[in-house]
Amino acid sequence: MPNDTSMTTAPAAAKVPTASLPETVVGSRAARKEDQRLLSGAGNFGHDMQRPRMTHARVIRSGVAHGRIINIDIAEAKALPGVVDVVTAQDLPDMPRIPVRIQVQEVDLDDYLQPVLAFDEVRYVGEPVAVVLAEDAYVAEDAAELVVVEIDELPVTLDTTAVDDGADVTIAADFSMGFGAVADAFTAAHHVTELTFDIGRHSAVPMEPRTLVVDPVALDTLEIFGSTKVPVFNRRVLSDMLELDEQKIHMHAVDAGGGFGVRGEFYPEDFLIPWLARRAKRPVSWAEDRAEHLVAVNHSRQQRHKLSVAMAKDGTILGLKADVIHDNGAYARTHGIIVPELTIAMLPGPYRIPAYDGHVRVALSNKTPCGTYRAPGRFEGTSSREQLFDKAAAEVGIDRVEFRRRNLLTAHEMPHERPMSTLGTDVILDEGDFLELFNKTLDRASELGWQDEVRRGRSEGRVMGLGIATFLEKSGLGPNDTADVEITRRGRVRVYSGGTSLGQGIETALAQVAADVLPVGMDQIDVINGDTAEQPFGTGSWASRSTVVTGSAVHQACKKVAARLIELAGRMLGHTPDELVINGSTVQSRLDPNQRKTFAEIVAASMPGSIYLHEDEPSGIRVRHRFTVDHMTYPYGTHVCLVEIHPETGQVEVRRYLVAYEIGVAVNPMMIEGQLRGGIAQGIGGSLLEEFTYDEAGQPQSTTFMDYLMPTACEIPDMELLISANFPASTNPLGVRGAGEGGLTAAGGCLASGVRDALCNGDPAAVDIIKLPITPAYVARYLNRHAKDRR
Amino acid sequence: MPNDTSMTTAPAAAKVPTASLPETVVGSRAARKEDQRLLSGAGNFGHDMQRPRMTHARVIRSGVAHGRIINIDIAEAKALPGVVDVVTAQDLPDMPRIPVRIQVQEVDLDDYLQPVLAFDEVRYVGEPVAVVLAEDAYVAEDAAELVVVEIDELPVTLDTTAVDDGADVTIAADFSMGFGAVADAFTAAHHVTELTFDIGRHSAVPMEPRTLVVDPVALDTLEIFGSTKVPVFNRRVLSDMLELDEQKIHMHAVDAGGGFGVRGEFYPEDFLIPWLARRAKRPVSWAEDRAEHLVAVNHSRQQRHKLSVAMAKDGTILGLKADVIHDNGAYARTHGIIVPELTIAMLPGPYRIPAYDGHVRVALSNKTPCGTYRAPGRFEGTSSREQLFDKAAAEVGIDRVEFRRRNLLTAHEMPHERPMSTLGTDVILDEGDFLELFNKTLDRASELGWQDEVRRGRSEGRVMGLGIATFLEKSGLGPNDTADVEITRRGRVRVYSGGTSLGQGIETALAQVAADVLPVGMDQIDVINGDTAEQPFGTGSWASRSTVVTGSAVHQACKKVAARLIELAGRMLGHTPDELVINGSTVQSRLDPNQRKTFAEIVAASMPGSIYLHEDEPSGIRVRHRFTVDHMTYPYGTHVCLVEIHPETGQVEVRRYLVAYEIGVAVNPMMIEGQLRGGIAQGIGGSLLEEFTYDEAGQPQSTTFMDYLMPTACEIPDMELLISANFPASTNPLGVRGAGEGGLTAAGGCLASGVRDALCNGDPAAVDIIKLPITPAYVARYLNRHAKDRR
Repeated sequence: MPNDTSMTTAPAAAKVPTASLPETVVGSRAARKEDQRLLSGAGNFGHDMQRPRMTHARVIRSGVAHGRIINIDIAEAKALPGVVDVVTAQDLPDMPRIPVRIQVQEVDLDDYLQPVLAFDEVRYVGEPVAVVLAEDAYVAEDAAELVVVEIDELPVTLDTTAVDDGADVTIAADFSMGFGAVADAFTAAHHVTELTFDIGRHSAVPMEPRTLVVDPVALDTLEIFGSTKVPVFNRRVLSDMLELDEQKIHMHAVDAGGGFGVRGEFYPEDFLIPWLARRAKRPVSWAEDRAEHLVAVNHSRQQRHKLSVAMAKDGTILGLKADVIHDNGAYARTHGIIVPELTIAMLPGPYRIPAYDGHVRVALSNKTPCGTYRAPGRFEGTSSREQLFDKAAAEVGIDRVEFRRRNLLTAHEMPHERPMSTLGTDVILDEGDFLELFNKTLDRASELGWQDEVRRGRSEGRVMGLGIATFLEKSGLGPNDTADVEITRRGRVRVYSGGTSLGQGIETALAQVAADVLPVGMDQIDVINGDTAEQPFGTGSWASRSTVVTGSAVHQACKKVAARLIELAGRMLGHTPDELVINGSTVQSRLDPNQRKTFAEIVAASMPGSIYLHEDEPSGIRVRHRFTVDHMTYPYGTHVCLVEIHPETGQVEVRRYLVAYEIGVAVNPMMIEGQLRGGIAQGIGGSLLEEFTYDEAGQPQSTTFMDYLMPTACEIPDMELLISANFPASTNPLGVRGAGEGGLTAAGGCLASGVRDALCNGDPAAVDIIKLPITPAYVARYLNRHAKDRR
Repeated sequence: MPNDTSMTTAPAAAKVPTASLPETVVGSRAARKEDQRLLSGAGNFGHDMQRPRMTHARVIRSGVAHGRIINIDIAEAKALPGVVDVVTAQDLPDMPRIPVRIQVQEVDLDDYLQPVLAFDEVRYVGEPVAVVLAEDAYVAEDAAELVVVEIDELPVTLDTTAVDDGADVTIAADFSMGFGAVADAFTAAHHVTELTFDIGRHSAVPMEPRTLVVDPVALDTLEIFGSTKVPVFNRRVLSDMLELDEQKIHMHAVDAGGGFGVRGEFYPEDFLIPWLARRAKRPVSWAEDRAEHLVAVNHSRQQRHKLSVAMAKDGTILGLKADVIHDNGAYARTHGIIVPELTIAMLPGPYRIPAYDGHVRVALSNKTPCGTYRAPGRFEGTSSREQLFDKAAAEVGIDRVEFRRRNLLTAHEMPHERPMSTLGTDVILDEGDFLELFNKTLDRASELGWQDEVRRGRSEGRVMGLGIATFLEKSGLGPNDTADVEITRRGRVRVYSGGTSLGQGIETALAQVAADVLPVGMDQIDVINGDTAEQPFGTGSWASRSTVVTGSAVHQACKKVAARLIELAGRMLGHTPDELVINGSTVQSRLDPNQRKTFAEIVAASMPGSIYLHEDEPSGIRVRHRFTVDHMTYPYGTHVCLVEIHPETGQVEVRRYLVAYEIGVAVNPMMIEGQLRGGIAQGIGGSLLEEFTYDEAGQPQSTTFMDYLMPTACEIPDMELLISANFPASTNPLGVRGAGEGGLTAAGGCLASGVRDALCNGDPAAVDIIKLPITPAYVARYLNRHAKDRR
């Protein structure tokens, strides 16, 4: 697997590389196959689908955070002309609640699963209680307003951290993991640093909210458009709920701009819309509006971390403890407990930690239920840990960079096993040199003159700081994915992947992987993602796993296809397979290149009735391969940022941002840069701006973009990227590590570090950042103190 | 494969059998799975499909039988509001003409293939010359009338038999087959009987004309609804013409009431409508009207047969000669020359013929091109041969029944090889006893008192006669078909067959075949036909081959599935496969029935990640099997009818009809009865009523149902059926022989025999029937002579 393994620095503006062409398509900055469609307006988005006699659904949601449903009066709504149907939980069949997708740590969440419609109690504002179906979306909205939901209000739980003060908070799960003699480490410590850190509730807000179009009549299957992340899982859940063969449910691929976890797995609407369509025997279209989106989709991130680190005199870490309260909102949704599980499993990060104890309580509150958001658990853990270590370094009197250098793992310590499990896999850090990349990153920041820039700024009286955070990621979660690869009668290649297209460029990445084994050229390869009919064993796209796991499945399926092409060509040409070689879209003799058969000719020879096809062999050339992997692979990196705080407002301006990331093998450096840049922007949003807040009654306060603040282009600085491909992963045949999350993982830690550095103004122990987002109001408190100190 | 192999007589009105239940589902009168859908109005017909922004196509056809196109003025049509597009051959891409589907006898028809739109010359009235696309069907028809087609008329060829008088007729193919010393046989003969017999031009006229709906935009494939007979072949042809991967073309299954050949394979519209849809980037709907149907679809049957039979003194046949002129209309369509080829290959029929010579000329005329119609070639051959043998018996002074008894093949002469080939297969008659079934049929007619009824009638002065004809059919044409069988996660069975549903009950028949291997019950089996995505290697439904070839593929795929279920259950239960047995929808231990796993549990154990699934094994339980067969199987039978001629009008009234048929194994006796009854009705139509006629300019005279006469319920008598299942076929594992055509094959011969018998009035040599249909005008001629003779 040849690849450009040299360290490359990608400048802020993408440039066309002048280097000689790579020998492989993997590694090239191939143009994205999906862009022609997307840029020409030919993208196929969920809500584009129109069907004759299509009806429109509107979900009626609880306006009360906690209460008992007394009555839902649908009579007036039903009577409105144009209304097709109005349903409440009374109308639903008997069926299971929405199940958890990945069961881990043997935690039973059955009592906390969400029903598709609330039937006796509502537990958060936004919980679905009824659905209206009407001839058009306007009538549906009007009718929804005529549904009278009578609710007896009950007391609300909003602050789950109050459980430590004895408040009555439901704990849905309580578990620990760790290793080493933690108590001994803390006893023996020269110094212990403690930090309580709160990560604010926020989530991804894709431009296109969730949409579903379901057609139960046009074909003999229930056609569903809009499922984006794990269509095969969603089909399975729906099949169970509807008691309908999965084969009668066809999830079609759609384009979707952004997944990030929030588009989710199986939401209540994923049952309600198909069920209503079958009930009405008419197509149904549904799209949430922005206000709905902000209360209905999975929230994420909200956790309190109580951390403590035990150190030797020289700052060497002896032990680490983390006590996490996860505010999961009202119900356990499909992610189950993987966010808090990942938090504590990954919290030790890239450091040499001899003893560790992580403890989590998953608490329920009367807020929107939670799920995953890009870099789940790692963003939270890295944010708090890196601030803890900045504080620890200050407390033991060591420079924060030096503190990290002493404690980061290096190549000769790999593989590094941590006797814990997460997502059902053992934590074994594979190849890498965390210290080396950390050093290179800081060298790069020096080259760019950022330290000097801060110094200069401060000398001019500006409040500036440099943030530094280093992180460990994970990717390539198994246990498997399945890919089909087919050669068409015209000699083209078709890849039917188990992944889904979320804007991440999976069509391009998988085509590149295929093009190295079947070198027909990128324009001769079609990649089909997210179609349950074409790939019924697909595992979807999430957790930075598609390039690793799906890509490996594609790679191996292509190899099988290549072998089959050679086998059949051998029969046609009278050669043994080892005498033949693939060249472009032909198989030819190694000795006499005129002895050749095109892929198209070979496919024709594989058709039923061909004299070259043996009786017991399958017709055509389409191979399915299931790639299985036991362990994850662990990419890593370092973030450096330069922030300036505006004293008048408390606003944090991010002036420079550098991400260094070890990718193993870069399938498409351009797309990796895109992933990292987008991650940085989301990280800035989550660290400085975005937060779902509630009033004392549990009423959400962030239901518009006036209140839920997203970064705009103005908030996003020039970015520097340092993509390293020095440690190809040994866990997969491509050597790749996932690239989906590393731009975001350390953003909270890095920005907190930068703000701390700015506010400390040379006194490293002056200020601890104890929460995200770092809002102007929060910063202003320290600025006031700062100002007072200066007076 | 247990089956009721006893001789059964089905009465005119179906009755529920009182016999004990059969041990197998095959052999039972299972209710048709398709009927609930069809009878409740939930059938999915081609034209039912509605798509947003759908346009409507109208084909403009030549009004001239032969001429040179001078100009086609589309300006006015294009200007009509609501017109989307108007195209002529000028607009077409460069591409091949519509190819022949089955190439036989090494005949090259390239010069005679039909273009999708006429570009320089028109060759029949009805030939497509342009297409209009409009917002609705009304505008499309209006616009079509505004297209001005200027044509210079050329001389027409209408009577292809004039070739023997030296007329200039294009002969597209000229070939012979036969065996034995024919010249010697005729030299040695005691007597030679000759007959020239014309079969009239007619075809099937299904209630629903051809329809197509093509959607090029809703999904990422070209979705096509309306292809019914050979969707995989049609997809391949379209793929070649559009230069588009087959995988991007999805032929969906539709319900269709009646195939019979006429719905065809690839017609010009099968290119034009998809191509227009892609050009317009909008869905297109097209349906031919009745007048169009009667000039646009394949005509069939029109042949002149010059036959002669050489006999010994006792009527033993020594040799047979057939010289056939096939009027193929203006172009060679997809059937190529298989109708005339089958005519001469099958003409010797069930008789012992020591020497045979068959010669065919395929002539072109300025009439609608021809194709297959139910029992192609056999209807024509049997009609003429049986009349020849009636005449021969009369001429040598032997009773026509006795004549046949002396010459029919019997069981001890089987297999009977005729050194000829048809449809690419050698003619080897397999099991059977043609004489035995002939005798039983006549015994049955006697039991029913038909001979007495004729005698009684004649004594009352009525003109009555008994028709007798015996025939050989063929079915189970290979070379292969492919079926997939899948077990769903709910434990249900899904069959993805290569056949198509044309009303013949294939869903039911294949479910019965599956139910004997996977005994989950008929309601737990879904059969999917005619979907190119689900079964890309399907060969379609035609030539009475689906139950034989597709059924065998299903049977063997089910056996593989059963073996896989047992293998996995063995792993789960810790048993070897031979310790286990399938019972209902479970696999259980032979010794301890409590040791069991349901199909659903076994499927769950086959999913990716299962501990029971080996690394290199495919996930799920779906097996594809290709059944291959070299030889056809030959069913056979005898028809007997009782006709009365009304002297005032010449009308032939069919008062009684009996068909005896050897089916090998009857999968569903009820459906076989339906097939035979429908065949009789079509046979009566083709023999007495239906004919496409032309005036001297080549203008079709039968373009409405006022002129093209179909039989109604009044013309159809009570029918008696005698289904024999005494000779299971050895060429397939089910032992079945096709049942699609035998109700029709001998109808022409039998009715001609009956009319002859009626008109002869005791003098067997008085009248020869020399043409079909036997119209009142034709009969009246003989009646007049009759009356004269009597005077």
